[in-house]
Amino acid sequence: MTRIRLLVAYVGTHYSGWQIQEKPAPPPTVQGFLEMALARISGLPLRAYASGRTDAGVHAHGQVVHCDVPEAKAGIDWRHSLNALLPDDIRIIQADRACPGFHARKSALHKTYSYQFWQESGFVPPHMAPYVWACGPLDSASMQSALHHLVGRHDFAGLRNSGTDVESSVRTVLHAELRPQPPCAGYPAHAPLLRLTITADGFLKQMVRNVAGLLVACGRGKMAPETIPGLLEKRNRQAFPSVTAPPQGLTLERVAYGDPEPFCQASA
Amino acid sequence: MTRIRLLVAYVGTHYSGWQIQEKPAPPPTVQGFLEMALARISGLPLRAYASGRTDAGVHAHGQVVHCDVPEAKAGIDWRHSLNALLPDDIRIIQADRACPGFHARKSALHKTYSYQFWQESGFVPPHMAPYVWACGPLDSASMQSALHHLVGRHDFAGLRNSGTDVESSVRTVLHAELRPQPPCAGYPAHAPLLRLTITADGFLKQMVRNVAGLLVACGRGKMAPETIPGLLEKRNRQAFPSVTAPPQGLTLERVAYGDPEPFCQASA
Repeated sequence: MTRIRLLVAYVGTHYSGWQIQEKPAPPPTVQGFLEMALARISGLPLRAYASGRTDAGVHAHGQVVHCDVPEAKAGIDWRHSLNALLPDDIRIIQADRACPGFHARKSALHKTYSYQFWQESGFVPPHMAPYVWACGPLDSASMQSALHHLVGRHDFAGLRNSGTDVESSVRTVLHAELRPQPPCAGYPAHAPLLRLTITADGFLKQMVRNVAGLLVACGRGKMAPETIPGLLEKRNRQAFPSVTAPPQGLTLERVAYGDPEPFCQASA
Repeated sequence: MTRIRLLVAYVGTHYSGWQIQEKPAPPPTVQGFLEMALARISGLPLRAYASGRTDAGVHAHGQVVHCDVPEAKAGIDWRHSLNALLPDDIRIIQADRACPGFHARKSALHKTYSYQFWQESGFVPPHMAPYVWACGPLDSASMQSALHHLVGRHDFAGLRNSGTDVESSVRTVLHAELRPQPPCAGYPAHAPLLRLTITADGFLKQMVRNVAGLLVACGRGKMAPETIPGLLEKRNRQAFPSVTAPPQGLTLERVAYGDPEPFCQASA
């Protein structure tokens, strides 16, 4: 078998997340469609391994996946072949042979997510609605202060949702920024979009959505940013009065694997 | 009756254009859904008049519509009421009483459309696919030259498709520009998106899509920009070797109505 690596983009709106669910009537998942296409091309039940799961309704611009394919099929144009079989809202951006030992999850150095806040509650333009949380006006200065308390190495147990078997909850947020952004080509510059980008060496379950909820609580004046360090110390999700932000604002932007990035040139 | 004015955004993907089609099984249209909602709110068969038709698959960020509603209903929150009844991909951005004599089409001073070219043919990210023409690599300098020949007052009969009863084909293109643009928040800056914006005192049938097709023919090196003035003089669609660009790249951005813009403050 030869390991290939895929860079995958998807609109998560119509999927129950990345991961296949073993149920009598399995809901549509990105992994499910991808493995169906891999099986059709190879004639084998191939498994696709992602850099990490994404929740139902969460999008990806740059999910990374690896898969072991038969030698005889290693040289085909996987991008073209898979795109021909996948639904329109799942696209293979790039396909390469992986470097020896490459693993989509274990080899990852860090990941970047974005979360988009729409600062009106009454109205979201139809082009934007699938990609934002419409949470009303926000005090972005307060959100910036909150964000400063999260950058660096911390125990994020209080921003992790239950239902995971990962042991350590210590992660390092390498970079985080929040800024206003015109939402798409053509929208007026005053469009009320705030965009969080956050890079860390790893994320706990629903951590970015919990960070987004925390920022909104601060932006609405319901939490004081300076309380965050004390709350983090409690290592308890219940200590935080803020909610888990809805999934549609969240996008997995990219996964970094060290030099050369993002895809090493396999010699084979 | 009192005249109201609506600013309407829609994703055109799932609609057979703006205009209602009187057929035994009418296809979904934006006007059809809007008039259905207006009728449910008012109890009357109200007619909605747009600044102009948009073709099947064409989008709008700022379509303008007027409608005469019963006095007794004039004061309700039309934005909220209509949005509650409309499909998610049609949204009322703003609703106001119109100034006396206002007419969505006749009062318009000028309109602006955008057209988005995606400079790869093999792959379009799923978030962008509904909004671009994937037409492969383009020489944007040649397209710029072509565009210069279209700005100003010209007879655009050669860039109008048949099936219209409009008499004069002379229009003034007030402004046109083409520039590279990151397609959406989060996409890499090198994303191969070129975006045309064009403003004119009026547009002929499928004129912007014919302009887009002309630009692409020049951008692919299949037409020389300097031939455009001579071709325009022939006043004949058949004189142009270029195609009508597909609808999904096109968006009606805004309609201008003079000062105060875009909505005058009705005293009533």
